Amino acid sequence: MNAVREKSDNRLTVDTAALLMVDHQTGLFSLVGDHTPGELRSGVLALASTARLFKLPVVLSTSVEKGPNGPLMPELRKMFPKAPLIMRKGEINAWDSEEFVKAVKKTGRKQLIVAGLVTDVCVAEAALSAARAGYQVFAAMDASGTTSWGVRETTVARLAMGGVTPINWFAIASQLMRDWRNDEQGLMAILAEYMPAYRNLITSHQSKS
Amino acid sequence: MNAVREKSDNRLTVDTAALLMVDHQTGLFSLVGDHTPGELRSGVLALASTARLFKLPVVLSTSVEKGPNGPLMPELRKMFPKAPLIMRKGEINAWDSEEFVKAVKKTGRKQLIVAGLVTDVCVAEAALSAARAGYQVFAAMDASGTTSWGVRETTVARLAMGGVTPINWFAIASQLMRDWRNDEQGLMAILAEYMPAYRNLITSHQSKS
Amino acid sequence: MNAVREKSDNRLTVDTAALLMVDHQTGLFSLVGDHTPGELRSGVLALASTARLFKLPVVLSTSVEKGPNGPLMPELRKMFPKAPLIMRKGEINAWDSEEFVKAVKKTGRKQLIVAGLVTDVCVAEAALSAARAGYQVFAAMDASGTTSWGVRETTVARLAMGGVTPINWFAIASQLMRDWRNDEQGLMAILAEYMPAYRNLITSHQSKS
Amino acid sequence: MNAVREKSDNRLTVDTAALLMVDHQTGLFSLVGDHTPGELRSGVLALASTARLFKLPVVLSTSVEKGPNGPLMPELRKMFPKAPLIMRKGEINAWDSEEFVKAVKKTGRKQLIVAGLVTDVCVAEAALSAARAGYQVFAAMDASGTTSWGVRETTVARLAMGGVTPINWFAIASQLMRDWRNDEQGLMAILAEYMPAYRNLITSHQSKS
Amino acid sequence: MNAVREKSDNRLTVDTAALLMVDHQTGLFSLVGDHTPGELRSGVLALASTARLFKLPVVLSTSVEKGPNGPLMPELRKMFPKAPLIMRKGEINAWDSEEFVKAVKKTGRKQLIVAGLVTDVCVAEAALSAARAGYQVFAAMDASGTTSWGVRETTVARLAMGGVTPINWFAIASQLMRDWRNDEQGLMAILAEYMPAYRNLITSHQSKS
Amino acid sequence: MNAVREKSDNRLTVDTAALLMVDHQTGLFSLVGDHTPGELRSGVLALASTARLFKLPVVLSTSVEKGPNGPLMPELRKMFPKAPLIMRKGEINAWDSEEFVKAVKKTGRKQLIVAGLVTDVCVAEAALSAARAGYQVFAAMDASGTTSWGVRETTVARLAMGGVTPINWFAIASQLMRDWRNDEQGLMAILAEYMPAYRNLITSHQSKS
Amino acid sequence: MNAVREKSDNRLTVDTAALLMVDHQTGLFSLVGDHTPGELRSGVLALASTARLFKLPVVLSTSVEKGPNGPLMPELRKMFPKAPLIMRKGEINAWDSEEFVKAVKKTGRKQLIVAGLVTDVCVAEAALSAARAGYQVFAAMDASGTTSWGVRETTVARLAMGGVTPINWFAIASQLMRDWRNDEQGLMAILAEYMPAYRNLITSHQSKS
Amino acid sequence: MNAVREKSDNRLTVDTAALLMVDHQTGLFSLVGDHTPGELRSGVLALASTARLFKLPVVLSTSVEKGPNGPLMPELRKMFPKAPLIMRKGEINAWDSEEFVKAVKKTGRKQLIVAGLVTDVCVAEAALSAARAGYQVFAAMDASGTTSWGVRETTVARLAMGGVTPINWFAIASQLMRDWRNDEQGLMAILAEYMPAYRNLITSHQSKS
Repeated sequence: MNAVREKSDNRLTVDTAALLMVDHQTGLFSLVGDHTPGELRSGVLALASTARLFKLPVVLSTSVEKGPNGPLMPELRKMFPKAPLIMRKGEINAWDSEEFVKAVKKTGRKQLIVAGLVTDVCVAEAALSAARAGYQVFAAMDASGTTSWGVRETTVARLAMGGVTPINWFAIASQLMRDWRNDEQGLMAILAEYMPAYRNLITSHQSKS
Repeated sequence: MNAVREKSDNRLTVDTAALLMVDHQTGLFSLVGDHTPGELRSGVLALASTARLFKLPVVLSTSVEKGPNGPLMPELRKMFPKAPLIMRKGEINAWDSEEFVKAVKKTGRKQLIVAGLVTDVCVAEAALSAARAGYQVFAAMDASGTTSWGVRETTVARLAMGGVTPINWFAIASQLMRDWRNDEQGLMAILAEYMPAYRNLITSHQSKS
Repeated sequence: MNAVREKSDNRLTVDTAALLMVDHQTGLFSLVGDHTPGELRSGVLALASTARLFKLPVVLSTSVEKGPNGPLMPELRKMFPKAPLIMRKGEINAWDSEEFVKAVKKTGRKQLIVAGLVTDVCVAEAALSAARAGYQVFAAMDASGTTSWGVRETTVARLAMGGVTPINWFAIASQLMRDWRNDEQGLMAILAEYMPAYRNLITSHQSKS
Repeated sequence: MNAVREKSDNRLTVDTAALLMVDHQTGLFSLVGDHTPGELRSGVLALASTARLFKLPVVLSTSVEKGPNGPLMPELRKMFPKAPLIMRKGEINAWDSEEFVKAVKKTGRKQLIVAGLVTDVCVAEAALSAARAGYQVFAAMDASGTTSWGVRETTVARLAMGGVTPINWFAIASQLMRDWRNDEQGLMAILAEYMPAYRNLITSHQSKS
Repeated sequence: MNAVREKSDNRLTVDTAALLMVDHQTGLFSLVGDHTPGELRSGVLALASTARLFKLPVVLSTSVEKGPNGPLMPELRKMFPKAPLIMRKGEINAWDSEEFVKAVKKTGRKQLIVAGLVTDVCVAEAALSAARAGYQVFAAMDASGTTSWGVRETTVARLAMGGVTPINWFAIASQLMRDWRNDEQGLMAILAEYMPAYRNLITSHQSKS
Repeated sequence: MNAVREKSDNRLTVDTAALLMVDHQTGLFSLVGDHTPGELRSGVLALASTARLFKLPVVLSTSVEKGPNGPLMPELRKMFPKAPLIMRKGEINAWDSEEFVKAVKKTGRKQLIVAGLVTDVCVAEAALSAARAGYQVFAAMDASGTTSWGVRETTVARLAMGGVTPINWFAIASQLMRDWRNDEQGLMAILAEYMPAYRNLITSHQSKS
Repeated sequence: MNAVREKSDNRLTVDTAALLMVDHQTGLFSLVGDHTPGELRSGVLALASTARLFKLPVVLSTSVEKGPNGPLMPELRKMFPKAPLIMRKGEINAWDSEEFVKAVKKTGRKQLIVAGLVTDVCVAEAALSAARAGYQVFAAMDASGTTSWGVRETTVARLAMGGVTPINWFAIASQLMRDWRNDEQGLMAILAEYMPAYRNLITSHQSKS
Repeated sequence: MNAVREKSDNRLTVDTAALLMVDHQTGLFSLVGDHTPGELRSGVLALASTARLFKLPVVLSTSVEKGPNGPLMPELRKMFPKAPLIMRKGEINAWDSEEFVKAVKKTGRKQLIVAGLVTDVCVAEAALSAARAGYQVFAAMDASGTTSWGVRETTVARLAMGGVTPINWFAIASQLMRDWRNDEQGLMAILAEYMPAYRNLITSHQSKS
């Protein structure tokens, strides 16, 4: 690692950001109408892989896993075996759960990336509450899904009005990485996995060297 | 009911919100081009059912029911038999009707959810006027409809510029509910009725218990 | 009933048609990407209601209800309590199930309407096999769903090449009804329920009489 | 008129074609989801104007004008004051009405252009029946409308399988006109009225002469 | 006229608004990709008719009518025979034309509705300049057109950032009208002409009285 | 040239095909709504370049160049200076022009590729007539344009019913080329010009050699 | 394996089908505009996995791997290490390559599934030639891609006119599998991998057992 | 030149603006999903041509040209042979490159137009950083591309929240030009090249003079 990661100037940094993944439960995925199932799965795993790469503190949360919502997407459990998993007892807005807020506080981070299902409820409610509580909050729109494009668009406007920045996983990864010289094929491997067009570029390129 | 509904922190609460349904008349539905007829009907009934569940004060209004606009959607009348129904005598913007404003004031609420037909006129005009009058106003975009996607998008921007928050019925319901432990199958039944994907989850789930 | 239903001239008739509903299971609905959940639910119930109205013989079938596919949509079970329900033991193409073919033959009908999940497999395979077996077959596209618009379009072409007529529930209902004078508010009630735009017309109309 | 209109070689001709307009009733327009209201109105009037220009025999039909379907679009009545208007007593498929078939036969034409609301029922049923009866039939897709794009696409396939040619008003007009030298500003005026892009071309052109 | 038009509370009023129509030239219409030609023509004429109805001061402007841009849409010339028509000598942003600004000032109005071709240049540039000059400015998005949906969306964001309110003709008409009791079939006739779905409602309604 | 071009087996060959370009006039381009202006221009030039590369006989035709339709796209004139240009005197269907048919016959080819404006009239009418006259006919859909996607889809079905094969320029070029070893950078240069994604591949590739 | 795979009745069977994968090269993927990169990658791998599961003979082919087209997608090479890989020397239509046809013949199969890049050229040309040569040919549309939706739609019509059946990977897999009792988690694992919505169903289901 | 270019009033001017083109590399174009390849290429070249016409200072930058990203689009190199080309050594956000910031400062301009690939990373990150550094920043959305429409929309909102104005090349060109009398066919030639609909207008116009 020969390049320096500078201090934040409003951007996400590996030292100040945490990731909150709210209700990525296998049943809830079936409510999503603003992404294809493949696109959303890819976005969720890409964001999670990015957080793991940069060792961001992660807080997981679910809502009634034993009910129709279903269990947490198993890959997330495996990727973050030690992350706190707040199984909310009924609170819809995760920020209404003392336990969740405590877990967030414990990360010591002031920048929160929120992703989840569904965007207009689990993501927007928690994100807007966190922003009101003084955090700098980002909503990862392509690692979150909701029922329709109309609801998505409505939610983007609502987030912006509440001071939450809508963003996407690749922009998040780029802010965290800062400099490709910091990479030891970590982020590059994530790109290859979750951006098939980039994977093709790499393969074409390597075949010629 | 074993969980406490906390005081509002800018969110809708059952004690501070009222619902204004403006011109959901059967003729006007035929002007709508930004939802399919089924989607819009579902959104309107879902929002109304939510308001009834939480006993929000409701103000209904119509414009010239005897004319081409047609009568109020009969289900709304049945759901809110005691709600004031302001039959405007000509005022396009419901807020220009003294009777309507009086009915709103009488609810004693400071948070207003506005839905209606068409979004760019009946909803936007009333909502923006209410915001200028000091209310915290939300426009329920999926319980409202307008002539085209272009007009809808234009209206979202106009609402945001005027301080009105565009929102959708499920986010409204979630803010009001706060905690599923408050539910006695009320909201869950509404979800099952108006979110068929959620209904399927429930059925699949129950078949396995 | 003062109008006569004429004999068929290639159209569906109440005396020659049967309805086959294949794998409308609550889990499988979550695979559908070419309809919104509300649209598809509406189409399925509209077609089933139509068949019930005209007392068409119905054959239901499911595939591994105890597994992820989930149980048959409960409404269908209730609407057709006496219809044979062929729980296939593994056959993907229902026409590969002797029991299913036997049930179809027992209806004595030569016109088969097929609907189901997913269109490209459960509907297309059974429909094409039935056509090869000499039946006149119709695929009810709006009471069936598949993973994407692309797959849907591919399947329409495949059905047409195999002699299966793609159709929709309202056209089916119209062929069966023939003459509104045969109706005693049966089909009209179905229209009012599943075509909200038509319901609005009726309400507007009645308010003026 | 200095150019000769040749005999038909499978194309529509002014001497062999008739236009059947089925159920263009003001209520039914509200069911249409595959065109905007403006597009469909324009297509209907353009086709009607074309038929009038070429003095095609026209048969009008409606279904229960006193009910929710509403009256025939008044412009059509005015454009064809002497055309037979078959007010069907209940027959959904106009071809099931003896009176309608008689009116068609009386035109003495073997080429039938069918347009109406809705495409999958009023147009497709009559058109397919007419084709089975030996007529050469064309379905004017842009002077007809139905509930959704999916139903439209399904109907195009069904029409093609039944030997009915889907077509649009401008192609119809072109086949009938054959040669612009036959025009005395008749069709050109229709283009200017119903194809605003063409009107702009004409205006730009004239401003420079 | 038995209802009173109240003073403005940020809304457009007949006493404070003027309409600026910039470069609705027949050649420029061919650049438009975010509306169909019929939709845009309808929107332009509806807005112009509305302004005429309410006797708003109108300023017309064109850019090099003798060149490829073509002449002003003739209907506008006819509707506003006495309106100043500023034929700009080269200024792209109409606000850069002293003559144009003078004409605007002469109207004595402080609320400006701007429409034109193309939205991102002729409308946005003039509108943003007028806003910087202290006017309250509205951009009539459905009486204006641009090359693509992407450019349109970009322009909506740009207008909002510059304090210009994007709006549509029907909302403008509603703000100006205030109360249907002020109407002597003026606005109603405009709706019937430019909102075919509303025209159908009226026709259905009248047929029943 | 070291590879042999084989005889046709229903495919287009350089010895049996001719290209007919009908009414690619600069005014008519403004009627097109099923391509962006850039896409259509690219498709037209790509097809013309391909025909020139393979020295296909080309017949050009226009309709009233002095009127609103405007002149032939100048690039086409330049690319085919010696091709017959049939300036039709009024015939809408080019096949109704004796002069045009004579020019086609003179090419001695039995495979005709037809492209033009607009697809539903100038292309479809000529193509269907040519097919009826015994030619094997291909309609180049991406070098032709029409007013809307709906009309395009209707026309594809109509062409197929009449035995005309809808195709695109790249498939045409591939059938004519047969073997890249026949190329001396001719077709490759056309790909680089009209398929920017391919151009990027070439540039990336060359930068590594 | 306790269920019997029956003989084919026009459907694909494991004993009669072969898979031809033409030009799935990493450079060519960048030309695709009718799928997202993720969707197409998923479709290609799903089809390949299916073929491997059922031990279908596979013929691979590429076109100038050393050039801009790039190397064969590496996963395919790994999945079918012993499959013949015909590196065409210039033939665009693989069926023009004697070596390719020989490899196909050597499979001894009469049913050919063709997939590749791009659909309108590499797939359509080879598929249509194979159909003319007497094979029963299927084009796997979701394991193939082309430049735009318009070209895709054109190609579906062209394939159908030439007797090639457009199909999708899941329908192919279903025809080959016939009966889930034949499965030992092979196809189920493929579904879980390439249909994320199905994977979610499985996870939800298992969490409850 | 007989018209005066006035001083800026928040608009771009030839004396205060610079263009930053970040990572327009041939490999990265293949990641773009919110434009067709032709549209984006056209937008990039149009913006570059505009900058060259007005002699704006240009700063080019690339990221690892020797890797999969590929070389800078060669046309840009040719158009700006003397522009500094900052080959970043790893910095994702060009503003993290001291060399890049130095080059920007050296232009002496305070208005920065940023374009590049991909919009959400290379454009948004640099633009937001530049805005935080006190520049007035514009993001040229149609000379930039990203992976999907969803990401694009998310990025527009994020840019607006950070004070960066989303804009398009034609609006940029118009602000810089101010007055067509300043043109000596420079911008007009660019319009003719990159707006084919405008080129058609010019050709039609000239043919009539």
